[in-house]
Amino acid sequence: MAGCIITISREYGSGGRIIGQALAEQLNIPFYDRGLVEMISAKSGLSEKFINEAELYREEAIKYAGYDVTLQMPLTHVVFHAESEVIQKIADEGDCVIVGRCADYVLQNRKDALNVFVYASIENRIERVKKLYGDKVNNVKAFIKRYDKDRAAYYDYYTDKKWGDLRSYHLSVNSDMGIDSCVEIIKTAYNKWKDGVQLI
Amino acid sequence: MAGCIITISREYGSGGRIIGQALAEQLNIPFYDRGLVEMISAKSGLSEKFINEAELYREEAIKYAGYDVTLQMPLTHVVFHAESEVIQKIADEGDCVIVGRCADYVLQNRKDALNVFVYASIENRIERVKKLYGDKVNNVKAFIKRYDKDRAAYYDYYTDKKWGDLRSYHLSVNSDMGIDSCVEIIKTAYNKWKDGVQLI
Repeated sequence: MAGCIITISREYGSGGRIIGQALAEQLNIPFYDRGLVEMISAKSGLSEKFINEAELYREEAIKYAGYDVTLQMPLTHVVFHAESEVIQKIADEGDCVIVGRCADYVLQNRKDALNVFVYASIENRIERVKKLYGDKVNNVKAFIKRYDKDRAAYYDYYTDKKWGDLRSYHLSVNSDMGIDSCVEIIKTAYNKWKDGVQLI
Repeated sequence: MAGCIITISREYGSGGRIIGQALAEQLNIPFYDRGLVEMISAKSGLSEKFINEAELYREEAIKYAGYDVTLQMPLTHVVFHAESEVIQKIADEGDCVIVGRCADYVLQNRKDALNVFVYASIENRIERVKKLYGDKVNNVKAFIKRYDKDRAAYYDYYTDKKWGDLRSYHLSVNSDMGIDSCVEIIKTAYNKWKDGVQLI
């Protein structure tokens, strides 16, 4: 049977991480999300906090890159290189689910990456984020938009694809259909993929 | 169980029509493609040929609309209105698969439309069109691009959504995964939908 690495890119608050976790559990394959951050930290020597927030710092890093008289790479480049190496290594070990971190792009030269994008209506995303953070965030809509903007900027900068453009993925699922529906849909794609892709 | 009308929008040569047909057969529900054109023709009095090519004429119709001293609607508007009525009527009759004709937009106020977009790499689309038309078409790539451009222009003009933007659909499938995979994926979405959408 063919190998299959499921990569999940997602809008903030769309439930993409929960879907990835449920998929990994049901398929009994490893799930890489926060564990990936630990591995990138070990590889790069950068803190987990910095790696988690690298998408937010990207613009700053680029702004100051020209002033870098030590000729070192901007730190976000260090993060990207470290995560690329870690993701390649993980993929070599067999089927798994990887959330975020431009994994679809990093694995683009392999034939076993099934790239998924998860999104949802802004109303359902606001509701999901409110449940998660309670009253800790003031303007939830602006908070979500800012996250998406940073994710898109990071992805578009480090890859030659466009974040949230369906042509960057094999499958795009709107989680307004329900978390469980999305899990079943991606699982079907995975199982068919394992049988080998048949082009007609 | 909840009703479910599957609407399929598709890139030219992506196999969207074949996928729709296989879906309808396997789910044992009606399939509307060419049959829809016959019904729109009966409703509007326009020829099937004109209705089939309405997407290509749209730009012409708009260009000359300002000169229409009889105050009649441009004929493509007549087509759109007739197809809207026919699609509403079909949807009232129960579950089915409808290919093209902005059916997702026409049915946007119903809660039972599962909107799917089918696309594929240009290489696979060229191969599929070549198999279909043999040597009858000179520049297959330009032929495909022209079709997509016309479909996009027609859709974007008559709806308030964007053709080929994943946010216009519940599910987008790349048929490079295989026609059979796409059928299974959409069938999973349909079956989950029938159970009732559960937002978490």
